[in-house]
Amino acid sequence: MRDTVVNSNTVSVVEILDTTLRDGAQGEGISFSLQDKIAVVRALDELGVSWIEAGNPGSNPKDLEFFRLAGKLKLENSKLCAFGPTRKKGIKSEDDPQLQSLLDANTPGVVFFGKSWDLHVTEVLRVSLEENIAMIAETAAFLKAHGKTVIYDAEHFFDGWLANSEYALSTVKAALDAGADRIVLCDTNGGCFPDTIADGVRAVAEKVPGTILGIHTHDDSGFASANAAAAVKAGCRHVQGTLVGFGERCGNTSLAALIPSIEIKIGLPCLPGGKLELIYDLTRQVAEIANVSVPDNLPYVGGHAFSHKAGMHADGILKLSRSFEHIDPSLVGNERSFLMSEVGGRSAIAERVKKIDPSITRDHPVIAELARKLKELEAEGWQFEGADGSFELLVRREIAAQLAAQLPAQNAGLLPAPFFHIEAYRVVSEHPTGETLACSHAWVKVLVDGQHEIAAAEGDGPVNAMDGALRRALTRFYPQLGKVRLSDYKVRVIDGKNATAAKVRVLIESTDGIKRWATVGVSEDIIDASRAALVDSIEYKLISDIEQKTKVH
Amino acid sequence: MRDTVVNSNTVSVVEILDTTLRDGAQGEGISFSLQDKIAVVRALDELGVSWIEAGNPGSNPKDLEFFRLAGKLKLENSKLCAFGPTRKKGIKSEDDPQLQSLLDANTPGVVFFGKSWDLHVTEVLRVSLEENIAMIAETAAFLKAHGKTVIYDAEHFFDGWLANSEYALSTVKAALDAGADRIVLCDTNGGCFPDTIADGVRAVAEKVPGTILGIHTHDDSGFASANAAAAVKAGCRHVQGTLVGFGERCGNTSLAALIPSIEIKIGLPCLPGGKLELIYDLTRQVAEIANVSVPDNLPYVGGHAFSHKAGMHADGILKLSRSFEHIDPSLVGNERSFLMSEVGGRSAIAERVKKIDPSITRDHPVIAELARKLKELEAEGWQFEGADGSFELLVRREIAAQLAAQLPAQNAGLLPAPFFHIEAYRVVSEHPTGETLACSHAWVKVLVDGQHEIAAAEGDGPVNAMDGALRRALTRFYPQLGKVRLSDYKVRVIDGKNATAAKVRVLIESTDGIKRWATVGVSEDIIDASRAALVDSIEYKLISDIEQKTKVH
Repeated sequence: MRDTVVNSNTVSVVEILDTTLRDGAQGEGISFSLQDKIAVVRALDELGVSWIEAGNPGSNPKDLEFFRLAGKLKLENSKLCAFGPTRKKGIKSEDDPQLQSLLDANTPGVVFFGKSWDLHVTEVLRVSLEENIAMIAETAAFLKAHGKTVIYDAEHFFDGWLANSEYALSTVKAALDAGADRIVLCDTNGGCFPDTIADGVRAVAEKVPGTILGIHTHDDSGFASANAAAAVKAGCRHVQGTLVGFGERCGNTSLAALIPSIEIKIGLPCLPGGKLELIYDLTRQVAEIANVSVPDNLPYVGGHAFSHKAGMHADGILKLSRSFEHIDPSLVGNERSFLMSEVGGRSAIAERVKKIDPSITRDHPVIAELARKLKELEAEGWQFEGADGSFELLVRREIAAQLAAQLPAQNAGLLPAPFFHIEAYRVVSEHPTGETLACSHAWVKVLVDGQHEIAAAEGDGPVNAMDGALRRALTRFYPQLGKVRLSDYKVRVIDGKNATAAKVRVLIESTDGIKRWATVGVSEDIIDASRAALVDSIEYKLISDIEQKTKVH
Repeated sequence: MRDTVVNSNTVSVVEILDTTLRDGAQGEGISFSLQDKIAVVRALDELGVSWIEAGNPGSNPKDLEFFRLAGKLKLENSKLCAFGPTRKKGIKSEDDPQLQSLLDANTPGVVFFGKSWDLHVTEVLRVSLEENIAMIAETAAFLKAHGKTVIYDAEHFFDGWLANSEYALSTVKAALDAGADRIVLCDTNGGCFPDTIADGVRAVAEKVPGTILGIHTHDDSGFASANAAAAVKAGCRHVQGTLVGFGERCGNTSLAALIPSIEIKIGLPCLPGGKLELIYDLTRQVAEIANVSVPDNLPYVGGHAFSHKAGMHADGILKLSRSFEHIDPSLVGNERSFLMSEVGGRSAIAERVKKIDPSITRDHPVIAELARKLKELEAEGWQFEGADGSFELLVRREIAAQLAAQLPAQNAGLLPAPFFHIEAYRVVSEHPTGETLACSHAWVKVLVDGQHEIAAAEGDGPVNAMDGALRRALTRFYPQLGKVRLSDYKVRVIDGKNATAAKVRVLIESTDGIKRWATVGVSEDIIDASRAALVDSIEYKLISDIEQKTKVH
């Protein structure tokens, strides 16, 4: 009994199949341990995709153990499927060990792939065109007889259809007639344009009306999302991709980039209700497991997807958000941000200052002074984009400076004293005669509330040594610094034409286990630049803790 | 006299406008120094794009200085253009200082943008619909009267056309009637689908037949390339994007990802003949200047674009390359590779080794050993791409090692002695009590041919100090080093998650006035990494001089 056959264009829900654990694993640098795979299955189930294509048990025996464990998970939304080829040429389905392993995986669904392109059949597979059709039909029938939902992936479908449309269509008809529940048309090489995809889908829909058609695209031409969207508009109601987008070569369609377009713009649900706003977080979870970053420019869920820089854009959004944003970022769990830079204007600065001190509005003299200072600092190589901690300190110092300028001189003591002052430091990198390795050590002397403290540390390099020494010196006075650690460190040479005398910009990301913040430092001396960024990092932590206490009381 | 008005669909060449230095600069984390911008202009000119949109002189005074310098460059293929808005509301064009700055930039072309979306006109710009049209028309006329090629960017065109098609079309007609040479339709929010783009382009072509229409897309939905391709198919013959793809939010269309599709698949030339195969290298050059990486999954030119992992794919390709590749990678200067397979690796290495020592063929044991060493070093963070000098030294050392292994022990003295050995060094960065500035100094002790020499130097920072000391110590023995200077210095933190203890990779470019070479060093200690790169730089110079002499005699 075929599984839910309807006319595609009347079906109002799009089924999602995520192949992170199979096609995604074919991406360069991607590999999953057993525990990684279980974690990915959980995340995908939480998102609510219909199918999780979780491996190829025939080609990777470790996958059978995974399927055994995965089968015990209580999944709320998703069903698992195993992936493999048609039966081999020249043998019966029931005698093919790879097909047997698909059954052994014991999943509700099975995806099997076959050839649609006559060139592949004769030159790569090296069988006759008729034998290929038999291989497809017999595999579909075999899997259906064993009670599986059978999903047939027609590999290279569109290239095959362009080369020999009659043959390509006959291969998918064979799969369908033998019992396949889904016919998925694949642009395996990633070279097709959206209009070809739409034409191909319509041709199949005409040949086999009433079938649930699927689409599987790759990003070799940068058209993966557009091709999948075109296929859905042409009637496909099953879409395959990987959540983050990694996969063979340029990758698969990123489901995180595609699903919001289908749900919000085409208007067809893909996920259970309320799940779309989890996509920002769950994409990051899966990327974390795979040890890759979510690209900042990934549509909808990328870190920069709603980051506005041009002053005019920031101004426009504050007046009317849909004037510069194609969707409301909260629909996908993302949020908008304004980047600080010489291109941005006063509106953007005022927006950020408001979060630090709500009493300051766009016309306050502090805003003009900050705009001026920013332009000056940026000309010297400072950049506060991505350095929210240093930016906040800049703002606070400017507000304090304006306040001080208004106070009569005798009241200057009412202003808060600085947390600490670095009196002196010395950082040494050396490679003594006869030693095999270089070593670094540093001492730092600080002044806190009239008291001196000096501390020393060794390090993997000069910056690491200074970092360690500064922290040791200050933790005596501020024990909360013991919880702070650096989570990222970046160095950029500003205009390398001055070579080793060039200015460097150091960006540091810190965390105390609860929040994260970034700080910056610029100098021709990388030690000095790192010192500036480290000092800001520590001051930011100390100020934030006070602000936190002030809010509570 | 309008500049080259033709019926778009009979024009057989697509004009490319690269806006890396303007729209690209609006990407998060992107900023260009004056020298960076000149370097980008050179790279884009080498690629052969028609227009380089190089800045917004009205919003950024530093840009005028850049345009002054850029105007002196002898460009082979590209023309520069400046970018800015229409005249401000309520004043005349000739009284608008921003328009004046566009003229002061003194470029052959000027791109100005205006509003097509009635919502933007009334809610964001806050003028009447008629005044907006006057602003557009008067600006076009003003710029045309000053002899510019006038390129009009219709911002938010497609959203505006969907909201109020009559008004949107009237805005572009106004620009054209007033003398604009190009009408560029922009999907500024990046939210449109390819079919909307195609429909919009066709509507404009019908309204203003005979106009050169352009397209400018953003990647907020992942459709930037597909939208631009759809626009070209619908008749656009001017395409705007950024080579690497960075830009506001999710970025602009990546021209590196788009141009090959237009040239190879649609069949319309975009670049001068023979230039397409340079696109792989030039994209990397521009990315390097911007201090970003070319994403591995960027279509056509990404590092993984032709990396095949699945065993079946590798097998297929070796049988018939077009069975798994949508184009021949060499057309864009890329090459295929097989992951986790020695076969692909060794061919590439042998290719490079042949240039250093033509007697070494692919099966020579040196090749296998180099392949093994490279994998090892790359796992530790070394990267020889862009470090030709260090790679050549690696090869020479391996060849020498294999030779030495074959010599009887007593003949070991026949091998050339190393040029020098660093016996010891000490680099100090300090900020003494009471001093306002930090200072750095270093001493280095070398051994050359049994003789010791020690030299010291001060520097702008620790690396600069060590560089100076090393050079002083060695120039006594090798006077030719006096001609060598560093022309570029780059630092990249490898995996910042180890923060200040992370490994850094230092890349140095050196020149002796005649040739340039690049060398690399990796360590957790930036001084040590710089030392390695500096040592390679010096050794490379000394070896090259000998090779040069040997060739002459």
